[in-house]
Amino acid sequence: MSYAVSPLALPFPELPAIAGAIPHVARAQYKTWDRCDLTFVALEPGTAVAGVVTQSKCPSPEVEWCRNALVLGEARALVVNAGNSNAFTGGRGRAAVEAIAARTAAHLNCKPSDIFVASTGVIGVPLPVDKAEAGLDAAFASQPCSWRDVAEAIGTTDTFTKGATTTAIVDGKTVTLVGVIKGSGMIAPDMATMLGFIFTDAAVDGAFLQAALSSANAGTFSCITVDGDTSTSDTVLAFATGHAKNAPLTGDESAGADAFRAALADLCHQLAQLVVRDGEGATKLIEITVEGAESDRSAHRIAMSIANSPLVKTAIAGEDANWGRVVMAVGKAGEPAERDRLSIRFGATQVAKEGLAVEGYDETPVAAHLKGREVTVGVELGLGEGRATVWTCDLTHGYISINADYRS
Amino acid sequence: MSYAVSPLALPFPELPAIAGAIPHVARAQYKTWDRCDLTFVALEPGTAVAGVVTQSKCPSPEVEWCRNALVLGEARALVVNAGNSNAFTGGRGRAAVEAIAARTAAHLNCKPSDIFVASTGVIGVPLPVDKAEAGLDAAFASQPCSWRDVAEAIGTTDTFTKGATTTAIVDGKTVTLVGVIKGSGMIAPDMATMLGFIFTDAAVDGAFLQAALSSANAGTFSCITVDGDTSTSDTVLAFATGHAKNAPLTGDESAGADAFRAALADLCHQLAQLVVRDGEGATKLIEITVEGAESDRSAHRIAMSIANSPLVKTAIAGEDANWGRVVMAVGKAGEPAERDRLSIRFGATQVAKEGLAVEGYDETPVAAHLKGREVTVGVELGLGEGRATVWTCDLTHGYISINADYRS
Repeated sequence: MSYAVSPLALPFPELPAIAGAIPHVARAQYKTWDRCDLTFVALEPGTAVAGVVTQSKCPSPEVEWCRNALVLGEARALVVNAGNSNAFTGGRGRAAVEAIAARTAAHLNCKPSDIFVASTGVIGVPLPVDKAEAGLDAAFASQPCSWRDVAEAIGTTDTFTKGATTTAIVDGKTVTLVGVIKGSGMIAPDMATMLGFIFTDAAVDGAFLQAALSSANAGTFSCITVDGDTSTSDTVLAFATGHAKNAPLTGDESAGADAFRAALADLCHQLAQLVVRDGEGATKLIEITVEGAESDRSAHRIAMSIANSPLVKTAIAGEDANWGRVVMAVGKAGEPAERDRLSIRFGATQVAKEGLAVEGYDETPVAAHLKGREVTVGVELGLGEGRATVWTCDLTHGYISINADYRS
Repeated sequence: MSYAVSPLALPFPELPAIAGAIPHVARAQYKTWDRCDLTFVALEPGTAVAGVVTQSKCPSPEVEWCRNALVLGEARALVVNAGNSNAFTGGRGRAAVEAIAARTAAHLNCKPSDIFVASTGVIGVPLPVDKAEAGLDAAFASQPCSWRDVAEAIGTTDTFTKGATTTAIVDGKTVTLVGVIKGSGMIAPDMATMLGFIFTDAAVDGAFLQAALSSANAGTFSCITVDGDTSTSDTVLAFATGHAKNAPLTGDESAGADAFRAALADLCHQLAQLVVRDGEGATKLIEITVEGAESDRSAHRIAMSIANSPLVKTAIAGEDANWGRVVMAVGKAGEPAERDRLSIRFGATQVAKEGLAVEGYDETPVAAHLKGREVTVGVELGLGEGRATVWTCDLTHGYISINADYRS
């Protein structure tokens, strides 16, 4: 089944090649479709890797595999399967991941633990090893492809193809970062969202890459939600080939560490926004900022309570400045809040202040703001200095159509 | 705006009179509608009262008023306003509640703190005191009405009128309990749901009534959810007039205490089910039981994670036995769970066992079960003895239509 392209879609950008990271795609035909659904990215020896994966208590075997492989901090390849998440498949699912890693490692003459595997799609059906192996063989034999081909091959219910790029100056060298991502529903990342892959030619020590990715994740992937439903397969991996020949980044004291951190955070921000823009049924991108909380963590929880409230999301879908539902969502978050200090704005217009409606506020700019594609909601709690911003989308008939029809 | 009657509606039962509790309804016209929207129930001196109210951090002034009045444990009247929740209205909202209590107390020659007030409807608009007072005066002057009239007068977006009754033998006397309730959306009670009122002629000490109500609430109102959105106004109050002349129930050692507790719990169960049956857009009543958890509390949290998952709710709306989404919801709950011990059933059919799909399970009874109006989902975690059952409804286009259109 395919759905109309999200009205919030952005065009796919030009993504440069990353020396040392060579992408290939192939048809494993995990579903009865005529498209590439297996991705293989060969990584040159010495590539550092970092990752963040779902905190689900029922993760896919791929997530467990990556979690173990990340401890070793080296990567020679990434393999991604689309159409079958291989989650909740017991010993057969684990065996499938091991078979993929083994065959790829044999091809590259490396250790299986240098192979990173991710899968996305239906839950509960063991990934067919024969299809995976045939797909891998085809990928090994294929010509390299573009990042756009990769972004298309990793997608499932995505309505548009998502990628981003940025650069940073490190040690006098320009380093390049590219990222591709997929995701549309089952989006409420705990530590990461669905599948996202970042490649850079920067020389970066694995531990520092992990620190920078974890930090970037906290303000980007961990701050988006489509439906509050955290996936069993969420994975973001970052690979650094070192081909830019900068003096390796080993810690915050390294020259260019700040620039690299900023570039990585910017890339993660772009990728996370693209996922929300493809939220199932989304017609509006919603940015929710909570300030004046007792702590940043408290602000984040309140912001997520608002972002996951179906009543807030449907009100915005209906272009209704229903700030009473925002009050409700603040109140149910279970975090410190005082009704009589609470203020709320839509766009730039204060609609409620210190516990009651702003009398006679001008509804015209509010109505105009809500008619747009990008809606901002601001909440001031008046308690402390804690703040957080999160992003979500509205809840529409499109979400119901997609999810009450999509057959497992 | 009015919506089609829920396909899960039940007929309103015959509700007997409760000696000592005399209901009246009147038109305060809080909205431009032609219906009674103010309820006044006169309670004879000596009526005991108990209550559970929302845990929202942004409660309505009515909730705060009741919370304070409950400490005193006596009731002479209940006043309910429909069409305006008076929540988030600052000092004017508080003044409105005080005015209602004062006028009612003056009429009955009692203390204002003996008057219990609840309001439901739009958030953020101060309850108009003039309309409330005129409505009260009309109610004082009116003939008593039926419980059905009360159930209709307290409703807002409800698509059917909800009440229940039961009896118990206490100290050789038959005591009668009746209850009315309203609620359809913004339902995820923390300690209570929307507005529910219970009247009994049993003689019950206030403290014991509170203990019995709190206990009944924990397994009923606190176990339902429509949309995960906890209201600012949730209130359940129970009044016991003592007219049945049983030896007063003062504790669990009193004769008939168990029978009364059981009857109250049964009544609360009936009322809570009615709210889920009127869940906005609901077409199916869903019962979710989680067993084998580390504790009852853990089981409850996992069951609520499933019940609030939009992906589970839309799958059931689409009559799709998508147990992968149940796995996802178990995994995201943050409670102890082990994927490889997890088993899931729809109706009586085991579809997944110990971490993977039951191969070749018979889909026929599952499909038939999902086509029905009442769907049961069972989860066995295989970890301990903890169990919980919660109730919710499916998520359909009806929910979106109701909430993206309903203008604040």
